This record gives sequence, C-alpha cells and structure tokens, in this order.
Amino acid sequence: MSNDIYENLSQLGGSSPMPASPEEATLETVPNPRPGSDYLVRFTCPEFTSLCPVTGQPDFAHLVLDYVPARLLVESKSLKLYLHSFRNHPGFHEDCTVGIAERLIEELQPKWLRLGGYWYPRGGIPIDVFFQSGKPPQNLWIPDHGVQPYRGRG
Amino acid sequence: MSNDIYENLSQLGGSSPMPASPEEATLETVPNPRPGSDYLVRFTCPEFTSLCPVTGQPDFAHLVLDYVPARLLVESKSLKLYLHSFRNHPGFHEDCTVGIAERLIEELQPKWLRLGGYWYPRGGIPIDVFFQSGKPPQNLWIPDHGVQPYRGRG
Amino acid sequence: MSNDIYENLSQLGGSSPMPASPEEATLETVPNPRPGSDYLVRFTCPEFTSLCPVTGQPDFAHLVLDYVPARLLVESKSLKLYLHSFRNHPGFHEDCTVGIAERLIEELQPKWLRLGGYWYPRGGIPIDVFFQSGKPPQNLWIPDHGVQPYRGRG
Amino acid sequence: MSNDIYENLSQLGGSSPMPASPEEATLETVPNPRPGSDYLVRFTCPEFTSLCPVTGQPDFAHLVLDYVPARLLVESKSLKLYLHSFRNHPGFHEDCTVGIAERLIEELQPKWLRLGGYWYPRGGIPIDVFFQSGKPPQNLWIPDHGVQPYRGRG
Amino acid sequence: MSNDIYENLSQLGGSSPMPASPEEATLETVPNPRPGSDYLVRFTCPEFTSLCPVTGQPDFAHLVLDYVPARLLVESKSLKLYLHSFRNHPGFHEDCTVGIAERLIEELQPKWLRLGGYWYPRGGIPIDVFFQSGKPPQNLWIPDHGVQPYRGRG
Amino acid sequence: MSNDIYENLSQLGGSSPMPASPEEATLETVPNPRPGSDYLVRFTCPEFTSLCPVTGQPDFAHLVLDYVPARLLVESKSLKLYLHSFRNHPGFHEDCTVGIAERLIEELQPKWLRLGGYWYPRGGIPIDVFFQSGKPPQNLWIPDHGVQPYRGRG
Amino acid sequence: MSNDIYENLSQLGGSSPMPASPEEATLETVPNPRPGSDYLVRFTCPEFTSLCPVTGQPDFAHLVLDYVPARLLVESKSLKLYLHSFRNHPGFHEDCTVGIAERLIEELQPKWLRLGGYWYPRGGIPIDVFFQSGKPPQNLWIPDHGVQPYRGRG
Amino acid sequence: MSNDIYENLSQLGGSSPMPASPEEATLETVPNPRPGSDYLVRFTCPEFTSLCPVTGQPDFAHLVLDYVPARLLVESKSLKLYLHSFRNHPGFHEDCTVGIAERLIEELQPKWLRLGGYWYPRGGIPIDVFFQSGKPPQNLWIPDHGVQPYRGRG
Amino acid sequence: MSNDIYENLSQLGGSSPMPASPEEATLETVPNPRPGSDYLVRFTCPEFTSLCPVTGQPDFAHLVLDYVPARLLVESKSLKLYLHSFRNHPGFHEDCTVGIAERLIEELQPKWLRLGGYWYPRGGIPIDVFFQSGKPPQNLWIPDHGVQPYRGRG
Amino acid sequence: MSNDIYENLSQLGGSSPMPASPEEATLETVPNPRPGSDYLVRFTCPEFTSLCPVTGQPDFAHLVLDYVPARLLVESKSLKLYLHSFRNHPGFHEDCTVGIAERLIEELQPKWLRLGGYWYPRGGIPIDVFFQSGKPPQNLWIPDHGVQPYRGRG
Ligand SMILES: [Ca+2]
Ligand SMILES: [Ca+2]
Ligand SMILES: [Ca+2]
Ligand SMILES: [Ca+2]
Ligand SMILES: [Ca+2]
Ligand SMILES: [Ca+2]
Ligand SMILES: [Ca+2]
Ligand SMILES: [Ca+2]
Ligand SMILES: [Ca+2]
Ligand SMILES: [Ca+2]
Ligand SMILES: [Ca+2]
Ligand SMILES: [Ca+2]
Ligand SMILES: [Ca+2]
Ligand SMILES: [Ca+2]
Ligand SMILES: [Ca+2]
Ligand SMILES: [Ca+2]
Repeated sequence: MSNDIYENLSQLGGSSPMPASPEEATLETVPNPRPGSDYLVRFTCPEFTSLCPVTGQPDFAHLVLDYVPARLLVESKSLKLYLHSFRNHPGFHEDCTVGIAERLIEELQPKWLRLGGYWYPRGGIPIDVFFQSGKPPQNLWIPDHGVQPYRGRG
Repeated sequence: MSNDIYENLSQLGGSSPMPASPEEATLETVPNPRPGSDYLVRFTCPEFTSLCPVTGQPDFAHLVLDYVPARLLVESKSLKLYLHSFRNHPGFHEDCTVGIAERLIEELQPKWLRLGGYWYPRGGIPIDVFFQSGKPPQNLWIPDHGVQPYRGRG
Repeated sequence: MSNDIYENLSQLGGSSPMPASPEEATLETVPNPRPGSDYLVRFTCPEFTSLCPVTGQPDFAHLVLDYVPARLLVESKSLKLYLHSFRNHPGFHEDCTVGIAERLIEELQPKWLRLGGYWYPRGGIPIDVFFQSGKPPQNLWIPDHGVQPYRGRG
Repeated sequence: MSNDIYENLSQLGGSSPMPASPEEATLETVPNPRPGSDYLVRFTCPEFTSLCPVTGQPDFAHLVLDYVPARLLVESKSLKLYLHSFRNHPGFHEDCTVGIAERLIEELQPKWLRLGGYWYPRGGIPIDVFFQSGKPPQNLWIPDHGVQPYRGRG
Repeated sequence: MSNDIYENLSQLGGSSPMPASPEEATLETVPNPRPGSDYLVRFTCPEFTSLCPVTGQPDFAHLVLDYVPARLLVESKSLKLYLHSFRNHPGFHEDCTVGIAERLIEELQPKWLRLGGYWYPRGGIPIDVFFQSGKPPQNLWIPDHGVQPYRGRG
Repeated sequence: MSNDIYENLSQLGGSSPMPASPEEATLETVPNPRPGSDYLVRFTCPEFTSLCPVTGQPDFAHLVLDYVPARLLVESKSLKLYLHSFRNHPGFHEDCTVGIAERLIEELQPKWLRLGGYWYPRGGIPIDVFFQSGKPPQNLWIPDHGVQPYRGRG
Repeated sequence: MSNDIYENLSQLGGSSPMPASPEEATLETVPNPRPGSDYLVRFTCPEFTSLCPVTGQPDFAHLVLDYVPARLLVESKSLKLYLHSFRNHPGFHEDCTVGIAERLIEELQPKWLRLGGYWYPRGGIPIDVFFQSGKPPQNLWIPDHGVQPYRGRG
Repeated sequence: MSNDIYENLSQLGGSSPMPASPEEATLETVPNPRPGSDYLVRFTCPEFTSLCPVTGQPDFAHLVLDYVPARLLVESKSLKLYLHSFRNHPGFHEDCTVGIAERLIEELQPKWLRLGGYWYPRGGIPIDVFFQSGKPPQNLWIPDHGVQPYRGRG
Repeated sequence: MSNDIYENLSQLGGSSPMPASPEEATLETVPNPRPGSDYLVRFTCPEFTSLCPVTGQPDFAHLVLDYVPARLLVESKSLKLYLHSFRNHPGFHEDCTVGIAERLIEELQPKWLRLGGYWYPRGGIPIDVFFQSGKPPQNLWIPDHGVQPYRGRG
Repeated sequence: MSNDIYENLSQLGGSSPMPASPEEATLETVPNPRPGSDYLVRFTCPEFTSLCPVTGQPDFAHLVLDYVPARLLVESKSLKLYLHSFRNHPGFHEDCTVGIAERLIEELQPKWLRLGGYWYPRGGIPIDVFFQSGKPPQNLWIPDHGVQPYRGRG
C-alpha cells in the first residue's frame, strides 16, 4: 500500500485544536487499501464526555465503534477529535449515540456500521445504546464487545 | 433533536416522592427521536427490592431491561421511581419480573422488550427469570447481559 | 396474581425434614401464573452432594436448572429438599444428572428443560453433563450459564 | 458445644416480622462457645437498603462486618432483621455505617469490630466507609475484604 | 444525628451549574457526625477530565480519594462539582492530582488524606500519581484501592 | 440404573499402572445408561504432557473433551490412564490432539465428539487445536469451553 | 526421604469407608520429612458439608487449612475422610470451624495452624470464620487465601 | 504420522537469524497430517511489533491467527520469524493485519483463514482489525478469541 | 504551577526520531512542582522489546516503574523514547531491568525508585525482575502492581 | 555487562537432552552482573510433573521460585531441564517442593530463596507448599504470587 493516500490529511501528525462542537469537527478519510474484502475495523473509545441537556452536568460514556469499510477508512486522529467535540455539546444518551453513528455513516458510506454506547450510571441506572445500520454483511466476523456489565457494588 | 419533547415531563429534574406501590407509579415517556431505526436501549438496575408475599421479608434483585423503542422512549427517572415502588410490594420472583415487563410493554408499546431478573439467593438457591416479548426484530444487535453466574462460596 | 395458588403447599414456610432418598422426596408445584408466555426460570444450585456407588465416597456438583413452565411451576423449597435427598444416594455423575432432569420433566411437564451438572474433579478430571429435553421453544431467550471452566492450578 | 445456648432465642426458626425501625429491632446473642480464643467472624450482607434523609429516595449498600467475639456471638437471623430494619430509615452513608457499628459494639461488647460500608453510586460517585473500633487484637488473622472497586463503565 | 447540619448547604438537592474553573468551585462541608472516631471515607470518581496544558487535548483520569475526617465532612455533591470544574482546566497529571489533594486538605483539615490518580494512557504509557498527606493515623483501616493495572492489549 | 454395567471394568477402584504408550493403553467402556437421549459429556483434563518429537523436550496441554454417547460411555479412570500414556510419547500438537480424538471415536463410536487442545506456549506462541467429528446432533446443548485466552504478560 | 514413614498408614491406597462421625474419624500422620524448617502446608477443601443443628438442613463450606508442621504431617487421605465425617454431624458454623482446628492442633501438635471457613449463605448472608492458633512463627511465608468475596447477584 | 515431513525444514531446531523484512522472511510448511478433516489451528502471538509509517515510532499488537489447513500446515518457528520480520517494517494497522493474512493465504492455501489484530492504543483509542477469508467451512468449530476489551483505566 | 519548566524540552510535542540505542537516548527532566512532598509516580509500559544477546531473537517485557521525585520529574515522552531505544539492544532480562533502573536513578536522583520487569516466557518459563533502590521513604504510599501472574494455559 | 560470563555454559543455545533424574541434572550458573544490589528474580514454572511414590501415577504442580542472587544467577535453560528431570521421579508434594528449594540453595548460595508449590488436586483437595530460606533481606521488594486459589467447581 502506498502512503500517498495520507497526503491530503490535515490533522495527522500536527497538533490540532479541539473542535468546539460536533458540527465544527471534520472527519477525514483515506481510501480503503483493501476494498475487495469485507473486514471489520473496531475503535474502542473510553474517553467520551458530553453534557446533559437538562442539567448541564457532564455525562460520560465508553463507546465501541465497528464498521466495514467500503471505499473509505476514517482517519483515527480525526475520529478522536470528532469525539472530543462533544465535550461541550448537550445531548441525551440515545440521541448522541445514534447521532454519532449516523454522522459516520453519512461520511464513510461504510458497508455496515455498529456503535455501542455504554454510559456511566445516572440515578444508579446506566443506559446502554446498541445501534447497527442493518443486517451485517454475510460472512463477516464480528467478535463480541465483551464490555463487563454494570453491577453497582459488592 | 429538539428538547421540547421533554416539556411535559413532571418528574425530571425536581425531587419526586417515591410512589407507594407499582399501581401508583407513573411511567413517563418521550417521543423516540429516532423512530426509523431499530436500536436497543438497555437499563441495568442493580437496586431493586420487593417483599416476599409469604414471609414479608425483603427480596432483592438485579434487573436488566432491554427494549427496542417504537414511538416512545421511557424517561429514565420515572423508570427508576417505578422500580422503587416495589419496595413495599409483596410478590413472587417470577410474578414481579414478568409483571414489570408486561407493564412496560403496555405503556411503551415497544417493538420488542426483554427483561432479565437475577434474584438474590433464598435457601441457597438463586432464581433467574428471563422473559422476552417475542422473537427479536430482524437485524437487531443484542449483546449478552454477561451477568456473572452465582457460585456459592470458594 | 392471587396467592391462593400456594394454599396447598405443605413444605413452604415450616421446617421440613430432609427426605431420606430421592424417591421419598416430594416435588411440590404451583400453577404457572403466566401460562401464556414462554419464559425461562433458572435455578442455580451450588449445594449438591451424592455418593459414589463404587467407593461410597461423597461426590459434589454445582447444578444449573433451566426450564420453561407450561401449566406448573416447581416450588423452590421442595426443589431444594429434593436435591438434598441425594445426600445418601449412590449414583454416577451422568446418571444423577440425567435422572434429576427426567424426574422434573415427569412432574412439571414443562415446555422445555435443561440441566447442567458441573461435577467436582475426581482423578484430576471433572465431568460436566449437559442435558436438554429437546429443541428449545422458538423465540425463547436462554442466556449462557457462564460457569467458569476448570483449570487445575496456576 | 451444647445447643442450650440457643434456648432463649425468640427469632430463630420461626417467621419473624421485619422490625419497623432500627430502634425496634432486637439483636439477640448467644454465649461465645470458644471464649478463650481470638477468632474473627465475618458477615457479608449484600442486601442492605435505607433512605436518603434529604430526598427520601432509597439508598443501597453492600456491608461487610468483622468482629472478634468476647462473651457473646450475635445470632445471625436477628442480625439480618436488624439490617432489614433500615428499610424505612432515613440516614446518611457515613452515619448509617458508623451507627450500625456502634450499636453492635454496645450490644456485643466484642473484643474488636470492623464494618465496611460499600454504598452504591450517587451522582456517579460511590462512597465507602471503613470503620474499626480500634487496633485489632494482637495475633488476629483478618483477611482483606477483597470487594472489587467501582469503575463506572467500560 | 440531626439533619440540621445540612441546613446551610447551597448545592444539595437543587440543580447547580458546573463551576467554570477549580478556583470558582465551592467545596461545602458539614460537621463530622462522629468526630470521636478515626474512620475512613472513600470516594471513587471515575468521571474526571481536564485538559493537557501543552496540546489543549482532553485528559481523563479515574480518581480515588480517601480521608479521615476531623471536624468536617465534605458534602459529596459539592465534591462532584469541584471535580467537574477541571473540565476546562489545563494541568499536568502530577500537578492536578496533588493540587486536588492540597485543596481538600486546606478546606477539610482532615486528620489524614490520600489521593490516587489513575490517568488514561498517553503515548501508550499511563501515569498514576499516589499522594498522601503523611503517615496514616494509628489503628486506621485502609483497604487497598484494588484498581486493576493497565496492560495494553491481549 | 443397575451397577452391573461396571462389572467388567478392570481398572476402576484398584491401583492401575500407567500404560507405557498410547498403544498399550486400554480404554474401557460401559453401556450408556440413557441411550435414548442426546446429551453431552465433558471431561476437562488439565494434566496432559507428551514429548516434542524433534527435541525430546516435554510439551504440556490442557485438553477439553466433549462427546455425545451412543451405545457406550468411556470409563473415566481408563480415560485418565490413556491420557497419561502420552507421557513418553513423541508427537506434534496437531497430531496428538487429532489422534486422541480419532482413537476415542473409534472406540466409543459416539454420536458426536469434539476435542480442544490448548497447548502451552513454545517460542512465545501457544497453539490451540479445535477438532470435531462433524456437525453436532440437532438440538444438542454445547456450552462454550470458556478457556481464557493466552496473553503473554502484563 | 525414605518412604518407610508411610508404612503404618491404614487408609492410603485402599478404599476406606467414610467415618460416621468426627469422633469415629482417625487422623493419620507421618513424620515431617523436613523438621528443621518452618514451612507452610495448605489444604484447600471445597467439598465440606455438615448439618444445621436447629433445622437438620445441610450446610456447606469451603475450608482452607494452613499449618506449619512440627514433628508430624497429616496424611491427606485421612484428612479428607475426617472432613467427610461431618456429613451427618450437626454443628454451628463457628463451632465446626474452630472445632476442626482444635482437633488438628491436638493431633498434629503443629508449630502453628490457621483455618478459614467460608460458609455458603443462609438468609442471604454468608458467615466466614477465621481462626489461628496464635502468632505465626517468625519468618514464615503465608500467602493470602485470596478467596473471592461473596456478592449476592449482579 | 511419520516425521519425514519435517525433513526439509531449514529453520526448525537451529538458531535462525531474524529476517530483515517481511519480504525476506520464508514461511515453511509441512504436509497436513490429517487432510481429511476440517480442524482449526489457532496461534496466539502477543509479541508483535512494527513501525508507524508516518512517525517511525513502534507499534505493538496482539495477533490471533485461526486457519483450517488444506494440504499444508505452517511450521510454527517460521511463523514466529515471519512475524518478527515486521520489527523494522513501517505499516498501518489495517494494512499490516490484512497483509499478513493475505501472505498466509497465498502460501498455505488453507480452506479458511481468520486473523484478529488487537493493536495497542494510540491517542487513547486502540484499533482492532478482524479479517476472514470468507465464510467458514460448514461444521467447523471456532471458539471465540475471548480477548478482553480495552477499557482505559479504573 | 507555571509551564515554564517545560520550556527547555526538546522532544515534547514534535515528532522525535527513535534513538538507535539506550546510550543515544536522552532523558529529559522537568523540575518537580511539589518538591516538599513524598509522592509516588508510576509509569506502566507494556510496550517494551529488546534482543536476546545469544540468539538475536526479540524479547518482550511489561515494565512498571515507580519513583518518588526529588528535584526532578522525568518527562514522559523522553521516557518513552528511552524505552524504545532498547529495540535493537541485546541484553539479558536481569541486566536490562536493573540497567534501566540504574540509568533513571543516575539521571533523576529520585528519593526512591522501583522497577518491575515482567518478561514474556521463554522455554515456557517467564522471568520477573524486581528491583528497588533501597528502603522506601517513610510514610510513602505504594500500591501493589497487581500484575496478573503467568499461568501457562487452561 | 560482558557476555563472557556465558562462555562456559554447555546447555544454552543447543538442544539438550532431558536429564533422567534430578540427580543427573546439572544446574548451570553465571556470575551475578549486579552483585551490589538486593533484587528479586522470579521464575514461574507452570510445566512441572513428577510421580506419586505410592501409586506411580503422575502428579502436576505449578511452581513459583523467587530468589535474591548473591554471587550467582541460575541459567534459565538449565533450571528448566532440572525441573523436567522430575518427570520420572517419585516424590511426595512436600518433599519435592522443599527438595527443589534445598538443591537451589546449595548450588546458588543465594541471599534468600522462596519456593511456592501449587499442586493439582488429589482426592478433591490440592496441597500448596510454601517454603522460604529465612527472613527476607531487609528492604527487598517481594510482590505477592497472586496465584488464584482453588475452588472446585461453580
Ligand atoms: Ca447513579
Ligand atoms: Ca440464602
Ligand atoms: Ca457468548
Ligand atoms: Ca481430582
Ligand atoms: Ca494450568
Ligand atoms: Ca451515580
Ligand atoms: Ca496511548
Ligand atoms: Ca500484553
Ligand atoms: Ca494484598
Ligand atoms: Ca450487587
Ligand atoms: Ca493512547
Ligand atoms: Ca465465549
Ligand atoms: Ca473507565
Ligand atoms: Ca515459551
Ligand atoms: Ca481431586
Ligand atoms: Ca463452589
């Protein structure tokens, strides 16, 4: 694989400022070097935080993103910056999770995409949101996330 | 997603009294912001307690609720209050678990719902109750609960 | 659910003597309060012991019972007493495990039943026996047992 | 050891009503059958719930009690009922935990007592309270509680 | 314990805005209801985030705070708000961790205080910072944090 | 089940010498007491060792055997002795694992058989061999082995 | 070490009947082959059961025995038979645990002995009993038992 | 199985130099001793390192390779050397992972091959790449990898 | 703390080439911002690799470094580069581990330093090396590393 | 450290035959490259097997060796061969464990040595043997072995 595909990336390598909102974040892509295969790419993002739209208090989540690239790969640093852009963004758990998935689908046009949002507990009850864009491509291999369940104490 | 959907909620934000019984508990709902997708919402509720109808002694359970919203989402604080309303309610394990599921189905009219009740041991033997409303919607992604099995000691 | 269904139970509440053998143990049942649904009931029984028919030495097992009630539920205290009745009963691992399943099938006439027997090691090699009464009812939800595998030491 | 020491117990065996408050709960004791030794008795109580004095909402805790009996043992069923008596009792985490320890010290007059309160999270932050009555008796063996730390999600 | 001690709290119960910086955050206290005992209070705070002073990128940490109250307890909601106030604060790992400890010592004047900062990896290497205010009070019971070590992958 | 089926066993009970090679080992069988059911028997054998045919150095493996008996059960002590007979036997990982499975198939004529060989690392890389005799019988219940993956250190 | 020290053992090797009570059980000993060293021997006994003296119901425990031999080692098969002899013995948790320790001390006259009894839960609350014969010999190495704590469910 | 099949191996046994690049690495093969069966061979390789093509910094991964041999087995020492040959090789995560799989497919012509690459985190976000050569052969048994998910800290 | 202390750092922020050997690696330091306290800084480095001086094959280790800063902190990026500089360095396990510790002591002049080297297995046997510079400073808090022990398979 | 210290090693690198008995095994040593420091070397040996002197059946153990070198290091390949030499050696658990420790002490003359033998269960009861040569050198750092306790099943 030639490295030219990374030539047009603006964020990789340098020190990029954190985007002020999801709308201002730019997702950069590179051509899929193996477009003939259906393979799965998984990003595990335990450093996610947004704001509660009602109380303004911070929310935290552990996100796991799975996708099958079609023509494009997401560049990982721009993905990181996109996720960081929720830092001052108010949004409900279900809405943030599904919204991130939809943005990525729109920009990457993947063959398939799945996003698990494992949110930290509020009121003693954590919420998980499990979204996928449809039936997985046939013959794909998708290991479980294996995220340990919440159990309170003890 | 506009926040207006939360306008009519009476319990969110304020300090709500614990309902005296399941019958007195009000489940509040909000419109599903993503009604076009089949996605799963999971609530993990390790703080559940009711009473044994025979002895009057407290029972405890760890509940995990999964559902696929149709037109409505359950508002999480009202769910918490509903679960707390069993605190003085006598009921058998199988009955409480299935009863909660049925109440939620009635009020949310979800596309699909699943409830796992993991009850604390009595007589050295814990009971689990696993209910679902039917065959899961096609193409849905439903990770395992992964609740660790009971093992006595050692 | 009315509590009348428990009216005829002789063992619940009081202090019941341990039956001397499986044959002498009485399994009590109550009407299934939710006969219209296929739901799973799981009992985890880490306190099981019987005797080796060849050496007379004690054997120990961790049992996990899953069943889908039809018309009847097994009353949990009578189940406990039935399991305790193997304390002085000689029987091989495979035979005890399958025999318990068959007795429960006979008395409960469940829609489906599964019994896992995880026996303590003899000769450095534990035996597990996994029995089910047939193909599970369609649309049933049956979480894994998740019993940790044996590994010797280290 | 003769069983006479249990003769005066009023709660053991029968079905005892849950006391309405800690004040109404009676802790029963039996003579220590081994008063010449310093040994440790540990009770693990994952089924504890009380009320928040400010909001009236339920709180949950996992308690682990360690003590070295002097002249008296606490009878375990009365201990269970005592803990259940907090079900409708408003109290802060620190206060409940230390208060339980003080009540037990007063009634048992043990050589030493330790109580760990592992409270379920509120506001995303669980509180633990670790109390002991003083320096442990010399030569005593006190294994760690080993309660798994809280970690949010992921 | 009377609840009057909570009378002067301004943040408890209501919905408090997130302070813009640590300097603007107010730590509220209540009188120690058990000033005669040396007991340990542990707060586990897995929801902490600040900014890297060099790159402006978010940093995340899991904090565990242990202290032995003297005259004052820290009120937990104000502690939460104080920790949230680092959300837009630039600071190095060692500096944030020790700075939080020093602020708490100044305001609570505890008998003893310990703070463990378990920071998320940067450059593949996480940093932990372990601070305590001095030798623990004699006879105190301080269970290990038991935070699982970092291990990369596999 | 009558115990007569064990009458002809020569190894059970007494002290049997370790066979010098797999060829010299005798696998003893007993009639399947439940030939009408498809149930699974699992043996977990963490005490297996053989020799490397190239270097003569010892190899170690953790074996897990699953089979569905037809007319015969393998007697567990003779299985143990058979496995011990590899102690001085040179053989490659793939060959030993599949060879054991084939020998058992030949002697037991089971409805189905599966053998997992989890070999200790050589050159920093462990090999696992997963063999099954064909498609499992319909309706059979086959829990995962759940053997923890190898991870090097850390 | 010569094997003559095992010459007088009556239980090793053969098939020994289970003693009917602890009193009838014989603990056999062999000379300590390394009497000049203080080393620790640990037996882990997860297969222990006795009877509740009040209800006659079975109790179960996981026992861990540590001792530093003086002149004698306990022969492990006779230890097993001694523990099995509690199968029909009524006794309270504290009493059984300390009683076993005292019997072993009397017969082995060890330099030091420790017994941990981890009892299965009754009434939702397990009891552990931790006994040691005194201060451990100086310079001895005694790893923790590491028995996982009880946690109810979830 | 005769050992002749190993006759032509040049690397086994002796001390082989580490190849300078993947291109220079030779994968050696041996005939499949059991070509009539579909069985799975799994190699777990926690010792993998390559270089980032942009920064030149080292990357690390934990690889798990599964394949179903057709006519050839890969010799494990040559596999180890091949993996080590990436030590000075610049390549992106997705490219290295899929490239290794393709090389192995080309040389082994297996019935089926799967490669999981679990890469160490960069920028706080680890990437996993899951590739398989197509739909697994019918009736094959393929246990999960069970690699523990990444979770940051806490 | 002012950020000026970072002014003279040459490696932070930019993209630094990997040093060719430990001798060529520069460890950069910054003034300890809290020189009045004894606190512990822990770096966990799961990405370490060197070469075997006899065979030239790669070795891997998981390192955990603990130190108590005196006048200087080590800058973490330069530490990372220093560790990476062993990539082409031949050295035995004991020698590398202790050598790294000595280099750090020389350059940082810390109050105390500890280094644990957890090496991947060779010949089926991993080696750990545990070094500390002397008795820890009084009153220091040093949590266990908690690195999971090696166990082969199963 | 110069590599000359390895010059006289006869086993390293080449293919060495397995010694027929412990007596025939040669332990090779190299000069301690850091004789001025007290540091701990730990070998974890999960591949140990010997024979029961009474029944001739194989025994298995997981050994963990800790020592503080004085003038000599043990060469790890010769240690492996020494341990393998017990393959046909009859010996009791206590005797093998302490015997290995004594042999190593004799040959290495270490400042201190500790050996933990974690033996696989016989009769349902595993034996651990914990030996150390005396009080550890002052200021030494000796992490726990952390070997998971035995627990039977469940
Ligand atoms: Ca909460
Ligand atoms: Ca119970
Ligand atoms: Ca699964
Ligand atoms: Ca055994
Ligand atoms: Ca093992
Ligand atoms: Ca919370
Ligand atoms: Ca990193
Ligand atoms: Ca690793
Ligand atoms: Ca510890
Ligand atoms: Ca719990
Ligand atoms: Ca990172
Ligand atoms: Ca699995
Ligand atoms: Ca986390
Ligand atoms: Ca190896
Ligand atoms: Ca055994
Ligand atoms: Ca158990």
